[in-house]
Amino acid sequence: MQLYSVSQLLKQENKLPEVEVKGWVRTFRANRFIALNDGSTLNNIQCVVDFENMEEAVLKRITTGAALHIKGELVESQGKGQAVEIIVSELEVLGDSDPEAYPIQPKKHSFEFLREHAHLRTRTNTFSAVMRLRSALSYAIHKYFNDHGFYYMHTPIITGSDAEGAGEMFKVTKLDAKNPPINGNGKVDYSKDFFGKETNLTVSGQLEAETYAMSLGKVYTFGPTFRAENSNTSRHLSEFWMIEPEVAFMDLPGNMDLAEDFMKYVLNYVLEHNRDDLDFLEQRLLNEEKTKPQAERSDMALIEKLRFVIDNNFKRVSYTEAIDILRNCKPNKKKKFKFPIEEWGIDLQSEHERFLVEKHFKCPVILFDYPANIKAFYMRLNDDGKTVRAMDILFPGIGEIVGGSQREERLEVLKEKMAALDIPEEELWWYLDLRKYGTAVHSGFGLGFERLVMFVTGMGNIRDVIPYPRTPQNAEF
Amino acid sequence: MQLYSVSQLLKQENKLPEVEVKGWVRTFRANRFIALNDGSTLNNIQCVVDFENMEEAVLKRITTGAALHIKGELVESQGKGQAVEIIVSELEVLGDSDPEAYPIQPKKHSFEFLREHAHLRTRTNTFSAVMRLRSALSYAIHKYFNDHGFYYMHTPIITGSDAEGAGEMFKVTKLDAKNPPINGNGKVDYSKDFFGKETNLTVSGQLEAETYAMSLGKVYTFGPTFRAENSNTSRHLSEFWMIEPEVAFMDLPGNMDLAEDFMKYVLNYVLEHNRDDLDFLEQRLLNEEKTKPQAERSDMALIEKLRFVIDNNFKRVSYTEAIDILRNCKPNKKKKFKFPIEEWGIDLQSEHERFLVEKHFKCPVILFDYPANIKAFYMRLNDDGKTVRAMDILFPGIGEIVGGSQREERLEVLKEKMAALDIPEEELWWYLDLRKYGTAVHSGFGLGFERLVMFVTGMGNIRDVIPYPRTPQNAEF
Repeated sequence: MQLYSVSQLLKQENKLPEVEVKGWVRTFRANRFIALNDGSTLNNIQCVVDFENMEEAVLKRITTGAALHIKGELVESQGKGQAVEIIVSELEVLGDSDPEAYPIQPKKHSFEFLREHAHLRTRTNTFSAVMRLRSALSYAIHKYFNDHGFYYMHTPIITGSDAEGAGEMFKVTKLDAKNPPINGNGKVDYSKDFFGKETNLTVSGQLEAETYAMSLGKVYTFGPTFRAENSNTSRHLSEFWMIEPEVAFMDLPGNMDLAEDFMKYVLNYVLEHNRDDLDFLEQRLLNEEKTKPQAERSDMALIEKLRFVIDNNFKRVSYTEAIDILRNCKPNKKKKFKFPIEEWGIDLQSEHERFLVEKHFKCPVILFDYPANIKAFYMRLNDDGKTVRAMDILFPGIGEIVGGSQREERLEVLKEKMAALDIPEEELWWYLDLRKYGTAVHSGFGLGFERLVMFVTGMGNIRDVIPYPRTPQNAEF
Repeated sequence: MQLYSVSQLLKQENKLPEVEVKGWVRTFRANRFIALNDGSTLNNIQCVVDFENMEEAVLKRITTGAALHIKGELVESQGKGQAVEIIVSELEVLGDSDPEAYPIQPKKHSFEFLREHAHLRTRTNTFSAVMRLRSALSYAIHKYFNDHGFYYMHTPIITGSDAEGAGEMFKVTKLDAKNPPINGNGKVDYSKDFFGKETNLTVSGQLEAETYAMSLGKVYTFGPTFRAENSNTSRHLSEFWMIEPEVAFMDLPGNMDLAEDFMKYVLNYVLEHNRDDLDFLEQRLLNEEKTKPQAERSDMALIEKLRFVIDNNFKRVSYTEAIDILRNCKPNKKKKFKFPIEEWGIDLQSEHERFLVEKHFKCPVILFDYPANIKAFYMRLNDDGKTVRAMDILFPGIGEIVGGSQREERLEVLKEKMAALDIPEEELWWYLDLRKYGTAVHSGFGLGFERLVMFVTGMGNIRDVIPYPRTPQNAEF
């Protein structure tokens, strides 16, 4: 007798006299129909028990959440809703699940409740679909870069420099918390800490990725990054995963080409490989939106939104041009924006980005050449002396999803920018070395992985797209 | 004119009248032959300049480490050592490299020196080969699990529990280091810290991976883990990457089958995809070993060692049987072991593991059913009451490379083991829940990624197989 996964069983086209399957009960209906799931697919296999010939004591143990080992015959299903089903010949309860105590009842639970039971929430359709998609997206990302000659690089998590200034950092320490050593200046003496200096959790692997791009050519990172900001929103995590490709000899237009091709590839990948999960999540979102006022519903269904990105060319627009459009657009003139657009130089908000994508251009948009003073020090200064070779990619529904730039490759210009921001050269001596020895044009971008998973799954809260979210006041599990 | 990578150019079988390539000078010989590398392969493309018709000032800028943009004709090479070469028609120096100052001279540097210049060390053959292999191994791991129906899961890095006891942990905090808040008991008040409690960097994702195995069936983690131990050895890092598959309904023999198949797959993958890099590293190792006394040299060359794993069945031997063999073996009787084997119950050392693999069985070995008191609390207790369903996989040259077990799935037994070790149930309530609701046999293993990279590359110091090593007193870059 052969052990099958539910996914394998559901694909069988012929009767099989003897099959074996192990999984968990989702529902048990009419003392007869077990919906069994093993995580291999969204769908359940229906297992039909002959309740008249089964011990009452065993029947009672077939409850939601119980683990079963089932043997039987795979046949064409008589009922609706499934092509095949198992006529059970043997059934063993591997692990019981007390129906009174089991938190995951066969009914709708709120996402807030499920967050408190995050160790069990992948036993629901929604979260198993989300996490299968998260896994498929990860694989698609690795596959894309591997197929395109990129090397995967593990940039350090614990870092001795806080020079990038991308956000507040968590401290990593082994010092005695109550009685830290104090130096002659009355400050905590980090020279006595584990690494002999103050260390933090990384906010980005980009600077280290640049060192490898300038030797291996094309590299990318995909690892955890951290922000110690007290942001309790549905879009922020204290710990999240980021993808950062970095390529030598690539300029900003090349960076745009790469990002567009890459985003289309990963979305296409899940459309091809995870259609069941996407269909389910699309339906879930439609049901959720029915409870909202018309004005708050999305214009596009989930899969339509993915196709919108895949099927359209990304429109490339300079920041300056975008500001002109926004200043003169109806919502701005009618004061419909929460943050009115008045002058060149301001940072754009999600409402402006979404207007450009959803109403004005009706396609994904790449904005480029941003004002230097709203962007990071390492971005290449344009000849106008006031803009930098930055780019942001804007998607429907969420606004910015990718941020990147061509990097400043000129030693003297970079030094000046660092000096203006009080970034000490000693902190980034190795980063400056890249500009001293064989410098060249190079570029890259960053993609917050959870933002991508939100876009693909239609989940509205970032805490629902990562297994165990870390947020202010929350590091459970 | 088309831009090619060096790897693409070296694969061309026909002359190409117009090619373009960008890369860095490895060497410039006889004012005529540039060896250009762009990281796409170990090998360089030879670019031949007509020095009589090139400006002296430009010629002088062709120095080791300089970035060049070259145009020319790809032709069959007249010289030895390469099939094709470029006859240069145009040459632009993109970035100079002062030959007096550039740390990476065209000569042999010690690995210690290169560790201090870790941002430039991938500009050498050895480190570019190591890091390309590291990338290829990562990809092979993702591909294996994806092709076998596993879901990739990102387990949390910041963790509120230190229950596993796999090692000392780093603290993650936002508290004021000099004046932390103190509670009524005179202790540091972590309820005022960012997460509202004491938090650390994870030592393993296994317990969380179990939660997903018990819903999604087959999962794996591949992420950074941390040890705050003051181990300054060539085999320990404070930050390293670990792979941890976890599978529901799989017992220990299934776990062994999975680990054996998996290890053979990833080794085979690099043999197929990274032969140039492996050949180079094999030669490097042979040269290095020539400087050692005969007794310290390896019995096998690098690729032979990989084939030894791929071509042999892994011998499965119980701990008890292994102790018998070791107690009665020649080296033990002649007191050649540093740690003599006297009685059942002791932990094995690398010398014993290597004896079993290299001298006794002459194949990779899986030891199983270890004494309970030298293994972790979550391993399944055997009926003898004194051994657990643990397994270690032993490889030539290094000893243990994989450690795994069938997990204790029985609630009461697990609770007893936790109580015996003073692990509070409140800390792991969610882990216990897995045994309350639909428990089942399940198993998994852990593989330290850097140990694998060391095995495959033949590098002797773990600091040389990760881009930016973190060790006591060292968090540079």
